[in-house]
Amino acid sequence: MTENRPTDGVVRVGLLGCGTVGSQVVRLLREHGDDWAARSGAHLELVGIAVRDTAAERDPWVPRDLLTDDAEGLVGRADVVIELIGGIEPARTLVLRALRSGATVVTGNKALLAAHGPELHAAAEAGDADLYYEAAVAGAVPVVYGLRESLAGDKITAVLGIVNGTTNYILDEMATRGLSFDQALSQAQELGYAEADPTADVDGHDAAAKAAILASLAFHTRVGIDDVPVTGIRHITAEDMAEARETGHVMKLLAVARRTVSGGTEGISVRVHPALVPAAHPLAAVHGAFNAVVVESESAGRLMFYGQGAGGAPTASAVLSDVVAAANHKVHGGHAPRESTYAELPLHGPDATAARTQVQLRLAHAPGTLAAVAGVYGEEGVSIDSVRQQRSADGVAQLTIISDVSTEAALERTVARLAEEPHVHEVISVTRVEGA
Amino acid sequence: MTENRPTDGVVRVGLLGCGTVGSQVVRLLREHGDDWAARSGAHLELVGIAVRDTAAERDPWVPRDLLTDDAEGLVGRADVVIELIGGIEPARTLVLRALRSGATVVTGNKALLAAHGPELHAAAEAGDADLYYEAAVAGAVPVVYGLRESLAGDKITAVLGIVNGTTNYILDEMATRGLSFDQALSQAQELGYAEADPTADVDGHDAAAKAAILASLAFHTRVGIDDVPVTGIRHITAEDMAEARETGHVMKLLAVARRTVSGGTEGISVRVHPALVPAAHPLAAVHGAFNAVVVESESAGRLMFYGQGAGGAPTASAVLSDVVAAANHKVHGGHAPRESTYAELPLHGPDATAARTQVQLRLAHAPGTLAAVAGVYGEEGVSIDSVRQQRSADGVAQLTIISDVSTEAALERTVARLAEEPHVHEVISVTRVEGA
Repeated sequence: MTENRPTDGVVRVGLLGCGTVGSQVVRLLREHGDDWAARSGAHLELVGIAVRDTAAERDPWVPRDLLTDDAEGLVGRADVVIELIGGIEPARTLVLRALRSGATVVTGNKALLAAHGPELHAAAEAGDADLYYEAAVAGAVPVVYGLRESLAGDKITAVLGIVNGTTNYILDEMATRGLSFDQALSQAQELGYAEADPTADVDGHDAAAKAAILASLAFHTRVGIDDVPVTGIRHITAEDMAEARETGHVMKLLAVARRTVSGGTEGISVRVHPALVPAAHPLAAVHGAFNAVVVESESAGRLMFYGQGAGGAPTASAVLSDVVAAANHKVHGGHAPRESTYAELPLHGPDATAARTQVQLRLAHAPGTLAAVAGVYGEEGVSIDSVRQQRSADGVAQLTIISDVSTEAALERTVARLAEEPHVHEVISVTRVEGA
Repeated sequence: MTENRPTDGVVRVGLLGCGTVGSQVVRLLREHGDDWAARSGAHLELVGIAVRDTAAERDPWVPRDLLTDDAEGLVGRADVVIELIGGIEPARTLVLRALRSGATVVTGNKALLAAHGPELHAAAEAGDADLYYEAAVAGAVPVVYGLRESLAGDKITAVLGIVNGTTNYILDEMATRGLSFDQALSQAQELGYAEADPTADVDGHDAAAKAAILASLAFHTRVGIDDVPVTGIRHITAEDMAEARETGHVMKLLAVARRTVSGGTEGISVRVHPALVPAAHPLAAVHGAFNAVVVESESAGRLMFYGQGAGGAPTASAVLSDVVAAANHKVHGGHAPRESTYAELPLHGPDATAARTQVQLRLAHAPGTLAAVAGVYGEEGVSIDSVRQQRSADGVAQLTIISDVSTEAALERTVARLAEEPHVHEVISVTRVEGA
């Protein structure tokens, strides 16, 4: 770090990428630079903005003389590099180069972190450099800070997050207006909450990258995106939402990371899936495109961090909080917490992962039916929390069963056997229940 | 700081006070010390626990050989002093001595901070020492961290907090079970959520100390507890709660700090009072003894920090997060953010403080009554958001008027004039409305 430590209180900031977030970062640097200098003694000087097309139109506050198409050159002359290009390359190469040379990197690139985290952290270690990524998870919500620094004195047992605003908006519209998934998706696209190709959001991949980052921080263990089994929200129907309301729940797409125990060994499980959350749980009150992350820890108990998960200004605010911290360290010494993987907990599979489910069945309306279904649960060692039976219009019965906590494996076996039961016409849905 | 900077990675921790929180701090230090060392390279060594009565019974994990009644001596040999004595003296003298000698102080003492903050910060400055106080506001909720470090890149416009668990528990019980204030208070006392003398909580003084600390951090301006006008919750009735539900609100005791503008000059206002919060606002979903602080900022938008506001283990968790940060700085360099008062914003009075109110009136049921009431609002320049009129059992009308945003001064003049109106039998209640 010594070579990049400024001696005059001036911290040279290089910005890679000037899209929606980058442009807001430029605005905030210009508007608040003097304030930060007054507070911390660190003068942030924006020394360049690397973009693909230096001739393209920009917001009026973006100084054209700082634009450059030489990203590598810019990395070479910055104390702090803000990476907002997104995607893997050239972001990966530029970030590695910056870290190895001792420059601090501030990034919002969740895909890069979830796919190449260990390589980035190793480069930071090698260059004695700091890597910040508050903006990579839940936008403006300071949950990376919370997990990495503020909860450093506690033992975290679980993290449950609404970390994708697009899917939360869609599910919220389905729940409150009775829209179908397709209707809600179209509306989200019209309003700019969802992309033309919504795959990364609605199939849960974006949430999985964030789940991997959160789990790594919470459990001091390396978790990559490929370690996270994912279920998206495409299959959810307006009827599912209505049924959820009937049973006092709200449907949310959750990133869930938990400390688990199997055969006496501690491990973790990380998942992304839709889940029914009790209406009184704080995550149930997270509406629209907002994000929130609940952290359960041994001593602090339940904490929640809530705020805007996306958008130019909110994400830029998270970037700038990292830049200000980085600048303070450059001027006053100290450094960001380094990657912490000392725990190296194994990833546990379905046999060790605790879960609850709601199962909806269509059944023959005949004597012995409920006994047969309940028998399957009993034989698999899964106890039942609640049962609701209704006669549907076509004369057959519809049964909704919420289990107690069991293992994923036992719950999967239960559903497989239910599907084979002669009385069961159809397994309509199987949905996780969280947050009880 | 140099003289107190350990060279061997061992950080000597001295604990002042060993009550509910202190005892949990001892437990966490013993249980997690090795984990923290693995993460940060800082070995925390508890070198002494100062208590008034060394012979008194203690939790089994408290090592008796560390107990001492020589608090001053302990302060002299610690790198990090944890102050959990509470109250003003001897806490103030000990904390000042520690800071002036360059030791880091971690305290949960909101009364001391709100009454003697400037003196403590000056001592920290003089000793080049760090002062941490996460546990002083909202227990385990990392809002001091959030305001002091994480939002350092943004401009905060308002802070609204449920920062007293006792009053939130009482109001929640009144709202959900229809209890009177006295019934809910008795229940809180039986369950240990309220003290035998509940004055500090129910009259809002505890919340006012926290409001002063939050406002100082949010607005980089010195605010003491005497700067905070306070209204408690003793006057709130079961009828008020029922009426709140009717209009889609929930009653909460809030600490409110806002950036204000008067005659072109920026300033701030800081208040503690009960307020009606819309049912969809995230603060409305904060139940029981939980705390939550909403921060509104220019770029990040609305953030909320939520969690347990009191209790031994949650408060100890907040203390330990500060201790771990302090130890990292002791070993790796850097320091906590110093007091930031560069903004020195003036405290604005009722003329510049924006507010909304709900006013409930009992009126003669006669022609011209509503026109007269509405006329008063109009003449004071206060516009009306909603009106609800009901005929009560005794034949007179009851009117509930929610105003738009105006100034406190205009709203007070409006109520004073309404009380003089011949048609108005009684001003039943005047309640603030927040969070719209």
